[in-house]
Amino acid sequence: MELKTTTDIRIIKADSSKINSVDFENLTFGNIFTDHMLICDYNNGKWEQPVIMPYEPFTLDPSAKVFHYGQAIFEGMKAYKDEHDDVWLFRPDQNFDRFNKSAVRLAMPEVPEDVFLGGLHKLLEIEKEWVKKGFGNALYIRPFMIATGSGVVAAPSTQYRFTIILSPAKSYYSGEVKVVIAEHFSRAANGGIGAAKAAGNYSGQFYPTKLANEQGFQQIIWTDDATHTKLEEAGTMNVFFRINDTLYTAPISERILDGVTRKSIIELATKEGIDVQVRPVLVDEIVEAAKNGTLQEIFGAGTAAVVNPIVGFSYKETYYELPKPENSFATFIKQQLTGIQYKQIEDTFGWTVKI
Amino acid sequence: MELKTTTDIRIIKADSSKINSVDFENLTFGNIFTDHMLICDYNNGKWEQPVIMPYEPFTLDPSAKVFHYGQAIFEGMKAYKDEHDDVWLFRPDQNFDRFNKSAVRLAMPEVPEDVFLGGLHKLLEIEKEWVKKGFGNALYIRPFMIATGSGVVAAPSTQYRFTIILSPAKSYYSGEVKVVIAEHFSRAANGGIGAAKAAGNYSGQFYPTKLANEQGFQQIIWTDDATHTKLEEAGTMNVFFRINDTLYTAPISERILDGVTRKSIIELATKEGIDVQVRPVLVDEIVEAAKNGTLQEIFGAGTAAVVNPIVGFSYKETYYELPKPENSFATFIKQQLTGIQYKQIEDTFGWTVKI
Ligand SMILES: Cc1ncc(COP(=O)(O)O)c(C=O)c1O
Ligand SMILES: Cc1ncc(COP(=O)(O)O)c(C=O)c1O
Repeated sequence: MELKTTTDIRIIKADSSKINSVDFENLTFGNIFTDHMLICDYNNGKWEQPVIMPYEPFTLDPSAKVFHYGQAIFEGMKAYKDEHDDVWLFRPDQNFDRFNKSAVRLAMPEVPEDVFLGGLHKLLEIEKEWVKKGFGNALYIRPFMIATGSGVVAAPSTQYRFTIILSPAKSYYSGEVKVVIAEHFSRAANGGIGAAKAAGNYSGQFYPTKLANEQGFQQIIWTDDATHTKLEEAGTMNVFFRINDTLYTAPISERILDGVTRKSIIELATKEGIDVQVRPVLVDEIVEAAKNGTLQEIFGAGTAAVVNPIVGFSYKETYYELPKPENSFATFIKQQLTGIQYKQIEDTFGWTVKI
Repeated sequence: MELKTTTDIRIIKADSSKINSVDFENLTFGNIFTDHMLICDYNNGKWEQPVIMPYEPFTLDPSAKVFHYGQAIFEGMKAYKDEHDDVWLFRPDQNFDRFNKSAVRLAMPEVPEDVFLGGLHKLLEIEKEWVKKGFGNALYIRPFMIATGSGVVAAPSTQYRFTIILSPAKSYYSGEVKVVIAEHFSRAANGGIGAAKAAGNYSGQFYPTKLANEQGFQQIIWTDDATHTKLEEAGTMNVFFRINDTLYTAPISERILDGVTRKSIIELATKEGIDVQVRPVLVDEIVEAAKNGTLQEIFGAGTAAVVNPIVGFSYKETYYELPKPENSFATFIKQQLTGIQYKQIEDTFGWTVKI
């Protein structure tokens, strides 16, 4: 895959860089942003010229639709630096496609490829010093679009802003992750916006997650809202279950985000000879497998942590501790995937794209 | 009910008023705002001093949580002017309570009563010229809260802004309203945020509503997402169905907003001797009643239009036209309710509150 570049991006360089004031060894996720951002405004039915400019605050009317009706979508990607100082993206076309699917579902205009991918390419060229070498280091990329039009009538905005901001990130280690299986709260409805990376899907999870945190669990595995019998995904990760030597993961649906990491793991694991079954995963069968000792692993899959092993889960007030198998699939898959991302393992899939 | 007023609101008056430039006879809903707004920021675990100040744009970091995770809630209320130039609110305590319920569900801090109701009182005192006399005229009140903290980690913000803005409104006439009964798309999940007035609940409706609009329907009546057999509510209105001389409306649930107009209509209609049944309303029984001629009326209930008669509905590609009964309940209830709001009919319920 080749990134299309645009020639007509306006570039306003920052007077100076703040890069030397950043402690790259001690980064908290998503707090520090690079010197520049890309913005592109949509007005009168069309996209204006994209601008790469110094990172600075937005000025918005108090009645802006994003504040009142949550018309807002985003993506999450990473740029990696290899041994030769080349900067790479991982399947950016997937994020671009998903972004525009989210846009359609939220009645927002689709962003052209040369703005999203071409603009990102240009922005990364300018900010490439911010991508640090070394395993685990990455530049987190946050493309997002908000409804900027003003007026409190409950209808789609006619004005939007697409933006890309960049944040340096260290290897993401979230400690031992224990999860709760959702019995009451839900993330998404049938026919709802769960499959979109829409802002409103995330704030709804904060309160149930807070309750879970208070009980000593870091995350929730969401279940279908109608019956709470099917395991769906976590807050920002899809989920895999290993019973004996088979990996199971829920099929994509209107309620589940079509994760890039998830689909890459399915391909990669299959290629490596692991049996991967994509089908509804029932709470009951996982509890049963935990009880009879066939449940080997559960792990989350998402851009932030790539693969996030789960050490145990709680369901109906009972806590089930997971074994720590010697030949962990989670560890193996994480090594393979990050190996490809950092260009240490040959990318036979054609997933990596050079900047 | 008495509004608590606060003495410690900081007031910064606008240099001049734009009121004389406003054409009060030709107002589009929610486009024009008064000279002042109230803002109150939440920082370091507490609410700061509220400020009434000139209406002006907000300045927010591109990484502000409201843009990425939709942590945003709002309310919708109206102020009315009576014959004696007194300004009145309708059950503001209900909006205040509901606002804080929404806040809890979205993991946002609750707003103190003296900020929300006391602040509104003070703001309306300053802006009372903007409330125009005459039936149908009102000042629409939009309290809202957004997550202003920066950083793209998917977790609740630690900083928030509560704001009240005001917009003069004319009597809301939305033309003949035809609705579609939802067969595929949904508004809310069990265990989700449907009962909160959360920003994210609205943007999800824009796309399905656009599809309905393209087919000649103005709104959607949402059904339960699991089976699509139960009628729930419309985008910004609860819904009543009249079969013979009985009014039916769905019970409040986690999926349905507890509308102030809805609950007032239930009380008022009951008092006026109308049989009101609060119970799940099935799509099938409404279709059946439409076919056998017992379905007399359907109307929406919400602050904007108070009562909004529906002229017909579509279900499974069939359009059902509703009769126009002589003794319309919708018309009667609207007269009674607006009569109370404009202080033309005695308020035996104690719903109206003087500014
Ligand atoms: C709800 C949800 N599920 C799953 C994922 C994982 O998707 P991806 O692998 O594309 O990062 C994300 C995104 O990070 C997400 O927000
Ligand atoms: C989803 C929804 N349902 C119903 C209503 C009606 O509520 P109320 O009567 O309090 O205005 C509203 C608000 O306007 C709403 O947003």
